[in-house]
Amino acid sequence: MKPTRRHLLTVLLLLAGYTLFAQPMKRPREYGIRFGVLPTGSLNAITDVPGVRVGQVTLQEGQSVRTGVTAILPHEGNLFQDKCPAAIYIGNGFGKLTGYSQVEELGTLETPIVLTNTLGVPTAADAVIDYTLAQPGNESVRSLNPVVGETNDGGLNDIRSRPVTKRHVLDAIRQAKTGAVEEGNVGAGTGTVCFGFKGGIGTASRKLPASLGGYTVGVLVQTNFGGVLQIAGVPVGVELGKFSFKEKLDGSCMMVVLTDAPLDARNLKRLAKRAFMGLARTGGMASNGSGDYVIAVSTANRIPNVSKTSLDVMKLLRNDDVSPCFLAAIEATEEAIINSLFAARTMTGHQGSRIEQLPVERVVEIMRKAGQAK
Amino acid sequence: MKPTRRHLLTVLLLLAGYTLFAQPMKRPREYGIRFGVLPTGSLNAITDVPGVRVGQVTLQEGQSVRTGVTAILPHEGNLFQDKCPAAIYIGNGFGKLTGYSQVEELGTLETPIVLTNTLGVPTAADAVIDYTLAQPGNESVRSLNPVVGETNDGGLNDIRSRPVTKRHVLDAIRQAKTGAVEEGNVGAGTGTVCFGFKGGIGTASRKLPASLGGYTVGVLVQTNFGGVLQIAGVPVGVELGKFSFKEKLDGSCMMVVLTDAPLDARNLKRLAKRAFMGLARTGGMASNGSGDYVIAVSTANRIPNVSKTSLDVMKLLRNDDVSPCFLAAIEATEEAIINSLFAARTMTGHQGSRIEQLPVERVVEIMRKAGQAK
Amino acid sequence: MKPTRRHLLTVLLLLAGYTLFAQPMKRPREYGIRFGVLPTGSLNAITDVPGVRVGQVTLQEGQSVRTGVTAILPHEGNLFQDKCPAAIYIGNGFGKLTGYSQVEELGTLETPIVLTNTLGVPTAADAVIDYTLAQPGNESVRSLNPVVGETNDGGLNDIRSRPVTKRHVLDAIRQAKTGAVEEGNVGAGTGTVCFGFKGGIGTASRKLPASLGGYTVGVLVQTNFGGVLQIAGVPVGVELGKFSFKEKLDGSCMMVVLTDAPLDARNLKRLAKRAFMGLARTGGMASNGSGDYVIAVSTANRIPNVSKTSLDVMKLLRNDDVSPCFLAAIEATEEAIINSLFAARTMTGHQGSRIEQLPVERVVEIMRKAGQAK
Amino acid sequence: MKPTRRHLLTVLLLLAGYTLFAQPMKRPREYGIRFGVLPTGSLNAITDVPGVRVGQVTLQEGQSVRTGVTAILPHEGNLFQDKCPAAIYIGNGFGKLTGYSQVEELGTLETPIVLTNTLGVPTAADAVIDYTLAQPGNESVRSLNPVVGETNDGGLNDIRSRPVTKRHVLDAIRQAKTGAVEEGNVGAGTGTVCFGFKGGIGTASRKLPASLGGYTVGVLVQTNFGGVLQIAGVPVGVELGKFSFKEKLDGSCMMVVLTDAPLDARNLKRLAKRAFMGLARTGGMASNGSGDYVIAVSTANRIPNVSKTSLDVMKLLRNDDVSPCFLAAIEATEEAIINSLFAARTMTGHQGSRIEQLPVERVVEIMRKAGQAK
Repeated sequence: MKPTRRHLLTVLLLLAGYTLFAQPMKRPREYGIRFGVLPTGSLNAITDVPGVRVGQVTLQEGQSVRTGVTAILPHEGNLFQDKCPAAIYIGNGFGKLTGYSQVEELGTLETPIVLTNTLGVPTAADAVIDYTLAQPGNESVRSLNPVVGETNDGGLNDIRSRPVTKRHVLDAIRQAKTGAVEEGNVGAGTGTVCFGFKGGIGTASRKLPASLGGYTVGVLVQTNFGGVLQIAGVPVGVELGKFSFKEKLDGSCMMVVLTDAPLDARNLKRLAKRAFMGLARTGGMASNGSGDYVIAVSTANRIPNVSKTSLDVMKLLRNDDVSPCFLAAIEATEEAIINSLFAARTMTGHQGSRIEQLPVERVVEIMRKAGQAK
Repeated sequence: MKPTRRHLLTVLLLLAGYTLFAQPMKRPREYGIRFGVLPTGSLNAITDVPGVRVGQVTLQEGQSVRTGVTAILPHEGNLFQDKCPAAIYIGNGFGKLTGYSQVEELGTLETPIVLTNTLGVPTAADAVIDYTLAQPGNESVRSLNPVVGETNDGGLNDIRSRPVTKRHVLDAIRQAKTGAVEEGNVGAGTGTVCFGFKGGIGTASRKLPASLGGYTVGVLVQTNFGGVLQIAGVPVGVELGKFSFKEKLDGSCMMVVLTDAPLDARNLKRLAKRAFMGLARTGGMASNGSGDYVIAVSTANRIPNVSKTSLDVMKLLRNDDVSPCFLAAIEATEEAIINSLFAARTMTGHQGSRIEQLPVERVVEIMRKAGQAK
Repeated sequence: MKPTRRHLLTVLLLLAGYTLFAQPMKRPREYGIRFGVLPTGSLNAITDVPGVRVGQVTLQEGQSVRTGVTAILPHEGNLFQDKCPAAIYIGNGFGKLTGYSQVEELGTLETPIVLTNTLGVPTAADAVIDYTLAQPGNESVRSLNPVVGETNDGGLNDIRSRPVTKRHVLDAIRQAKTGAVEEGNVGAGTGTVCFGFKGGIGTASRKLPASLGGYTVGVLVQTNFGGVLQIAGVPVGVELGKFSFKEKLDGSCMMVVLTDAPLDARNLKRLAKRAFMGLARTGGMASNGSGDYVIAVSTANRIPNVSKTSLDVMKLLRNDDVSPCFLAAIEATEEAIINSLFAARTMTGHQGSRIEQLPVERVVEIMRKAGQAK
Repeated sequence: MKPTRRHLLTVLLLLAGYTLFAQPMKRPREYGIRFGVLPTGSLNAITDVPGVRVGQVTLQEGQSVRTGVTAILPHEGNLFQDKCPAAIYIGNGFGKLTGYSQVEELGTLETPIVLTNTLGVPTAADAVIDYTLAQPGNESVRSLNPVVGETNDGGLNDIRSRPVTKRHVLDAIRQAKTGAVEEGNVGAGTGTVCFGFKGGIGTASRKLPASLGGYTVGVLVQTNFGGVLQIAGVPVGVELGKFSFKEKLDGSCMMVVLTDAPLDARNLKRLAKRAFMGLARTGGMASNGSGDYVIAVSTANRIPNVSKTSLDVMKLLRNDDVSPCFLAAIEATEEAIINSLFAARTMTGHQGSRIEQLPVERVVEIMRKAGQAK
């Protein structure tokens, strides 16, 4: 069969695509962009917190499926039997997160945290139940509290077709691993949109100097919200003429904060609120239709499900000493959001929709003029 | 085949059972028991609030399936397109209710309320999504907030087998009707336990005199909690030597409050809190393992999903005039809980478990001695 | 000077008064009335919690001053330097309590708790500042969080004249002592009204059996609210034909819960909520105009104001083991409220107002008929 | 009398002072600095909201008194008789604000809002009671809810001497007027410190285009907090080498948001939260010791204290249309904070303390380099 024009076009497009994607993805820091004043962890990722694992399953099929699952596991043990102090802060509650009230009441997390799309939450929660019931040691468990968050990828993704299955969720949990975390159009961030550009998964971390406790605060975000984009304070959204502040439904940012600082649920809720301040620094506005949630978890103390004694002995960071962790959460969240934008790539999807990626080179140029990039 | 002793025993047991169940179920009021000072609605049920419908599916199969679904629909229209002001109060949050944060943020309910067992929540939420996406007029809906509550029937029911399917939930929604509401071992109350006796579904209502607004407050409960039972103040639990206040996990009471009083979300949350006070009056203690939630909804104002104007005009009951509604919620919740106990019947279930029903005659005798029954 | 009719009348009234007040005040328990199932502490008072002190100043002057101050001190040391874990639960927030947000944020109490009348709160808070700034060791304190609660005694008391001075508050704090606590028309309860009868200060406690931890939960209340009175479940309000559920402004109940159980702020907030359940059991309804607040404090762990280390080591009661404390708070609050009614005496006051005391003998008779008193 | 060296020194100092203060104060906008994308109101002040009045009393006496009072009145009528929908959001609750719980419960404001120093709150609340009781029409008022906020000026001000009297507070309320609002070292901002520089009172506003409702959102702040200063996103704090993120006690920012948008308490609380996002954009971090509160009030609907009917008819902005107001609150708060810094002047105070003003010229130079000032 002789090559036709159609064939040639395909080849050209593939080459173009290759060029695009082959272009080594650089994170903002590699352009000399700095967020705040604290040093990052070695990976600048949520997995800088020892023991934390992330697993992602990306669903990109045909013209219409653009979604996925991201799972975060605070430690490598049986989470139900060995719970972590946790808290959830609700920035704007137009969202379908499950598990809020039990975390609020008991101050603990007992399952992996799963992120997916809005209409996939029940399926994901059901899979978390499957996972937990099946874990060795959980044979008599009859009640458990899945924590599943979401944003709405219904622009690029045919969300009404509900493509996420329990298998996808279980795969994300089982594939969870330490080390570098993939960012951009991946997992629960596959089909998301942020500040009018392609959003996705982003991550970052801060490591406090030893004099401030030496703790690590890691953040992972699923970015799908609007506002007037600022990058390290530079009004990029205005410069690009790209902003809109009257949007309906399609907002939302899920933020997960992990730390090895010994915080109880009360101080974790305060920490979680600071992540929301980090979102504010990117120009996010938590519009009416936004579901902005922060789940904060500490790995420092474990709460056994069953105990021989009625007392838990906890070492807890004093109120007076939590502020550096607060700043770490602000900075890491801000950076994680921008990281998601730098990593995401232009995507076409459901009903011919198309969302452009952040024009990174142009953005870096703007940042340079503002003295904020090399 | 000649009748054996075994046959005879079976016949006797069947006769005993028949006698037991044939015995016409009487509600506490029929014994002259009174809860509080306000008059009931005509059915003494949540369905006394005009337009409110209830649908229930009972799953009782083999030795181990003892569960079900109860659905409450505030009005007969398309709830998503014509939302109701709503609020959720959390008495004790050891539970898996979905939908809390969006109701809290936006002050509206946009789906049927569904009650089921703990591990069935995701399935039920998924079914509510199915139902809502499929409703005429909702073709472009991509985000919706299922409100699904639960209690844990894992004593009588093999909860880990997760017998509730989407079909059951859709059936409960579709069968919802006005009129009398079945109580006891039905729907989401099929396998529940309350104060050590068989619990279940209960309902009651209050109708305010015209001088206090003439509003109706209706309550439906799914009772599955512990404490020291009091009936209309009489210490029945102590008299029967039946109480335990150190229980783990197996608590919980779901309470749904409907009213035609024109309350906004703020005052509905206050109303919801009064339902929790009604629970307190029965001797409930909201133990650590209890998931005590109240969902309160007003049918008086509707919030259209789409509107040509940016303003909603609302007639709202003034703060100064809500107190009678508060008392109505307290009394109706107290009575609904006791109604559930009077209606429930002894049940055997999973792994040979058996929960006795409230010994009604003995209870009535105790009540009579205390001057609280005829 | 020859005795006149006027003189005779005076003598008679004095005799009548003497008879009235000489009549030995009996607490409900002395009539065989029981609230719940747990045993009391030895004094059946908040001061059963080791180290807790109460001080009261009663202002009863002329025809119109009927108010006072009650101070509760969790321990004998410098509270600012040695803070206690604490939480505040708001049942109904039509009240002027100060100090809520800092207790909520930091989880600690750093001053005495003071109760007084509504318009006296600022004066009392100012006095708490005086007291704390002047304590040895607090020379460099520049910020402190007075916790002052109130109810409105504006029926019997000329509240607009604002008779409470800083001196009264400082006296109440300085006179605080361990041992039995005076109840009824005393301190902050001098001019209060409860269920249409004379209210006042009440107190009670529960001591858990050793198998449940052996902890003590003590409660002190300032009763000034409405509803339909129930005593140990007996519908006394209905029997006496004395209830009203549509009242404006003049509600409110302050509840203070102290315990030596090692609870952190999160579990103290849960404990505080159970006190509100105790109020519900007396027939309280938390009407619109009610300011129902519970302040809960644990004396088991101390949080030093200044520390050489950044970590506090805390022994904390596990979630699974808090339920008995919950029941203790419910029961002790119910009993403390009824204790206040039994102790209070008929009072005349501002503008010829007069509030009758609970007709104790008649009430006891009603209780006997219900089998709830000896 | 011959001039002495002392005289000469005085003259020189006076001249220096004159020069300093004579230097015309310019607001950031006059340097071409822009905050966000929405237009300001005509005064760029909280008083752009029709009817809103501000009164300030500055106390600067001797070496040690550096404090004052700022009062904000939402409308010119009797606030108690004609209440405004209101809400309070707590960013970080290490503060002594009074009035929170009643605003939260009832959704209304019934007194002027007063800001002062931490230890002056009770005195200010007492003065608000004086003011309200004495207003014509309030003769029978026996309960009222003063809303008084504070920050801690205990660095420059001898706060333990408690120089604020009721007279100062009453003067601030009575002098309240519409029109331009003085910024910087004035009223409650007299002795405050922000980002290590002299803080104070700041104000700003946004006026939405008619297509978005045409509403005005005005903000007034009392700035006294730490973090890493950003001005319109430019990292000025880092450039000036001036930041510290581990501070104790001396944080806090009071934010007051007024609007003529018809919002109820629920949406006002959401609006208030956006002001906190505005604080985040300046580099504020809500450190542990910070008392960050936002009081939001709408002047569009009035709630009469007494009404012949039991229903209030309210026109309320739909959830879907509130987002532009949210952005307005974010931007106006950010700008108000920076305005306070530009207006404040170097101050010496208690115990030889001295806080430098923001080096405006140097800052503007930094801003110019970043392309953010003319």
